Amino acid sequence: MTEPRLRVVGRVESPLTDPATAPKQGDEGAPEAWLVFDETYAPALRGLRTGADVLVLTWLDRADRDVLVVHPRDDRSRPETGVFATRSPHRPNPIGLHRVRVLEVAGVRVRVADLEAVHGTPVLDVKPVLDGER
Amino acid sequence: MTEPRLRVVGRVESPLTDPATAPKQGDEGAPEAWLVFDETYAPALRGLRTGADVLVLTWLDRADRDVLVVHPRDDRSRPETGVFATRSPHRPNPIGLHRVRVLEVAGVRVRVADLEAVHGTPVLDVKPVLDGER
Repeated sequence: MTEPRLRVVGRVESPLTDPATAPKQGDEGAPEAWLVFDETYAPALRGLRTGADVLVLTWLDRADRDVLVVHPRDDRSRPETGVFATRSPHRPNPIGLHRVRVLEVAGVRVRVADLEAVHGTPVLDVKPVLDGER
Repeated sequence: MTEPRLRVVGRVESPLTDPATAPKQGDEGAPEAWLVFDETYAPALRGLRTGADVLVLTWLDRADRDVLVVHPRDDRSRPETGVFATRSPHRPNPIGLHRVRVLEVAGVRVRVADLEAVHGTPVLDVKPVLDGER
């Protein structure tokens, strides 16, 4: 199979602009942000409600895709670990996974709480959280 | 930005071969399966341990990427809902998200419990489950 190509369905609008200072996870003081979808995908948002807990998948386009081992949380005192055993953004497929609550749905704009992705990050997908994932 | 290209880092080896009869979620009677990684990615597995709870990201290569609305769980009595409010495999970026437990790590082969992906499904990523996702 050839390499699958992703479709960028939207973008993050956020006050976060610098990956170096952005929180590493949403529960570490991340701000509210807007997910702004391309009008093409408006039908895909039907049924998305305020208060829903969702998983947002993003494409971390500033990541280094050739990194296979890291010091967890950039702490050089920790042993090198394979990226599949860490949540480092640097990995062969830098897909960001963000669990957030929907605060508002306004057309193709969706406001969410606690999103650590920086401004401009491409959005790939939104999935409702399943019971087993709560 | 042009469309990002994914790297297939491994494949699922599973007794499941027919998507029509495969369980829709891992907690619905899915079998054990092997994740078989390309040797290139062996370093990325370092630190992955038996007993770990991980999120496996796959590429659902049989999905229809042009579907934007569905009847949830293929039940036509339910109203059409946008795919971003469902877990339908049919969506613009058919990335499968599977929470599984690691049962065994043998070189680039990783045995996991309760994986509903069918045999041959491309693997994109493995991430440890975070505390907030338990």
